[in-house]
Amino acid sequence: MTSLDDLPLRDDLRGGEPYGAPQLDVPYALNTNENPYPPSERLVKALGEAVMDVAGTLNRYPDRDAVALREDLAAFLNADTPGIGLTADRVWAANGSNEILQQILMAFGGPGRAALGFEPSYSMHPIITAVSGTRWIGAARDADFGIDPARAAETVAEHRPDVVFLTSPNNPTGTALPLEVIEAVLGAAPGMVVVDEAYAEFRREGTPSALTLLDGNPRLIVTRTMSKAFAMAGARLGYLAADPAVLDALLLVRLPYHLSAVTQAVARTALAHGEELLGGVDALRRERDDLVAWLRAEGYRVADSDANFVLFGTFPDRRRVWEGLLERGVLIREVGPPEWLRVTIGTPDEMAAFRTALRHVRAGTDPHAPRSDSVGES
Amino acid sequence: MTSLDDLPLRDDLRGGEPYGAPQLDVPYALNTNENPYPPSERLVKALGEAVMDVAGTLNRYPDRDAVALREDLAAFLNADTPGIGLTADRVWAANGSNEILQQILMAFGGPGRAALGFEPSYSMHPIITAVSGTRWIGAARDADFGIDPARAAETVAEHRPDVVFLTSPNNPTGTALPLEVIEAVLGAAPGMVVVDEAYAEFRREGTPSALTLLDGNPRLIVTRTMSKAFAMAGARLGYLAADPAVLDALLLVRLPYHLSAVTQAVARTALAHGEELLGGVDALRRERDDLVAWLRAEGYRVADSDANFVLFGTFPDRRRVWEGLLERGVLIREVGPPEWLRVTIGTPDEMAAFRTALRHVRAGTDPHAPRSDSVGES
Repeated sequence: MTSLDDLPLRDDLRGGEPYGAPQLDVPYALNTNENPYPPSERLVKALGEAVMDVAGTLNRYPDRDAVALREDLAAFLNADTPGIGLTADRVWAANGSNEILQQILMAFGGPGRAALGFEPSYSMHPIITAVSGTRWIGAARDADFGIDPARAAETVAEHRPDVVFLTSPNNPTGTALPLEVIEAVLGAAPGMVVVDEAYAEFRREGTPSALTLLDGNPRLIVTRTMSKAFAMAGARLGYLAADPAVLDALLLVRLPYHLSAVTQAVARTALAHGEELLGGVDALRRERDDLVAWLRAEGYRVADSDANFVLFGTFPDRRRVWEGLLERGVLIREVGPPEWLRVTIGTPDEMAAFRTALRHVRAGTDPHAPRSDSVGES
Repeated sequence: MTSLDDLPLRDDLRGGEPYGAPQLDVPYALNTNENPYPPSERLVKALGEAVMDVAGTLNRYPDRDAVALREDLAAFLNADTPGIGLTADRVWAANGSNEILQQILMAFGGPGRAALGFEPSYSMHPIITAVSGTRWIGAARDADFGIDPARAAETVAEHRPDVVFLTSPNNPTGTALPLEVIEAVLGAAPGMVVVDEAYAEFRREGTPSALTLLDGNPRLIVTRTMSKAFAMAGARLGYLAADPAVLDALLLVRLPYHLSAVTQAVARTALAHGEELLGGVDALRRERDDLVAWLRAEGYRVADSDANFVLFGTFPDRRRVWEGLLERGVLIREVGPPEWLRVTIGTPDEMAAFRTALRHVRAGTDPHAPRSDSVGES
C-alpha cells in the first residue's frame, strides 16, 4: 500500500496533520462556534424556492463576479455599521472566510513574504499562510489576551510583515480590539492589514467595527462571515470589505466561477431574511454574559468575550476536563493557550447541560452512573 | 483614488489580467463549453427539495469530508468505466475542478517546484500553477495537437517537473490522448501526473479513460467535473480519483468545510438524476461530429474532437471572424493557437445559427441588414 511518505509531497507539509475539530455525534456540540438556532420553516421553504429559481439554468456558469450578492452584502454592512456607505465594488465574497483569507494571502503574501498574527488566535491564519507559501510570524497577545497599541506598532515595525492579521473579536479568546490598536497597526504596517471580524455581530455595545476605518485606509481589509451570527455555517459564505483596488488584486488570484449559482442564491435569500437569522444574536449575547458571570462565580478564570464563545480555565490537565465533558455528552474545544478550554454559546438548554456536566467533572462523579440532580443547577 | 499599483501586490502578479471569457448577454452563447440542455422541471423540483432537506441544519457546518457525495461519485465512475472498483477513499471533491487543481498544486507544487503541460491546453493550468507559486513549463503539443509518447517521455525526463498535466480530451483542441501517452509520461515522471478529463464523457467510442490506469499508479490523478456532460456548471462540482495517499496529501491543504452542505446536496441529487443529465451527451456528440464534417466540407481545418467543442481555422485575422460572429449574435471563443477559433456544441438550433452566421461572415454581408436566407443553410 502506498503511504503519503511515498508521494512527492511538498517538503514543508511533511509530518503535518489535517486541520479540524472532531466531527462527533454528541448530544451537545459546543465546539465549533456554530449558532444553535436553525432556520425557520418559512426560511427553509424560501431557500428551497430560491434554489429552484436558479436550478433551471444550472447548466450555465454562475455570475463570475457575484454582483447581486455583493450588493446585498454591502447593504447589510451599511445597516450594521451606519455611515460607512459601502458599495458592491468594495465588497467581495467567497466560499467561507477561509477562502477569503486564502485569496488575500495569494495576492499579498506568497514565497519570500511574511504574515504576522498575534497569538493565541484563529488557528487557520498560520495554516492558510503556510499553505500559500508565506512565512508565518507569531507574535504574542498580552496576558489578558488584548494587544497594546504601542507594542503592536513596535512589533509590526520590527518585522515589517506583508500581511498583518488582527482578529476582533478574537478566536479563541473572545477579545475585541479597540480601534486604537487597529489604527496603530495601520500606521506601522508596510503591507496589508486584515481585521478578521468573523464574530463582529456578537460584540458588546460600544465596540465599533473596523469597517469605520476603511475610508482613507486602502491597505485595510475587514473580513466577515455568514457562518456565525447569520447561522449559515453550512452554506459557506465569507466576505470582505476593502478598497476597490484590493478587489482588483483578488481578481488576479481567485478561481473563476468560485461561487456557485446555488451559493449565491442561498446567501441572498439568507440576507433577505436577515432579521430572522440575526434574531438569535441578542439571546446568545445574554447567554454568553450569563455564562461568563457563572464561570467566574464558580471560581474559574474567564476571558472577556465579545463573541459567541467563552474561553475559561485554568486547568493543569485540560484534556481530562475536555474528556470528562465529552463522556457526559458535551463536546467543547481544546484549543488556544494550554490551560484553557473554549465553549461555544448554545441554547439555554445546552448551556444548562454544559454547566451541569462541568460541575460533575469537577466533582469527579462517575459519568456512567444514573444522572443525579444533586449537583445540578439551583 | 487608490490603484492596484499603490498596493503591495505580489511582484509576479503585477501587470496581470484577470482570467475570464466575457460574460455577454447574446442570443447564442457558444463560448464556455457549457451544456445547452437545462435540468428538467422534475429535476429542478428535486434540487429544491434536496436543499430544503438540508436547509433546516444550515446553522451547522457541513460534513467536512463529504463522504456520502464521494461514495456517489465513486459509484458514478464505476458505472462510467466498469472494472475500476473505486471506493470513496479514492475519490475527492471540491468547488469545481479549478479548486481540485489548486489543491493538487498546493500539495505537490509550490515554491521551488515546477509543473509542466503540453500546450495549447486549458489556460487555467498555467494560471493556477503560477498563483500557487509553482514554476510553469510550457511544452508543445504536436502539429496535430496530439502528443507523441516517446517525445512526451523525453520532455518529462528532461525537465523532471513535480507535476505534469495531460488534458484528455484537450481544451481547446478537443484531442483525446491514447493511454500509451499517459503510460509513457507516468514512466518518465518523477512526480505527480494529472490527467484532466473534464470532457471525458464526450469522447468517441474506443478511447479509454485514464481511470483504467489508476491501479498500480499511485502518482496518477484523474480529474473530472460535473460542469460539462452533467450540465451542472452553475453548481461548481469538480472531483478526482487517485490513490488514498493522494487524498491524505490534499487533506493537508484543503480549506476545512470547503464544500457547503448545499453543494453536497445539489451534487448528490444531480448524480441521482444522472441518466437525465447525461442524456444530452449522445446528441451533443452527434452534433459535434456533424459540425466537424460540415466545417471540413466548407474548407476549414478542423481538429479531431472528443469533446463538446470544436477548434477550427485557420484565419489570418481571427479577431475579425470572432467579432463578425458576435455582431450576428453568436459568441464563440478566441482561444488557443493564434489562427484558430473554438466553438461550443449547442442545440441543433444554436448550431444552425452558428453555421449561418459563419457563412455570412465569410461572405462579408452586412450584419445589420435584414436577414437573407440566400446564404443560409441548404
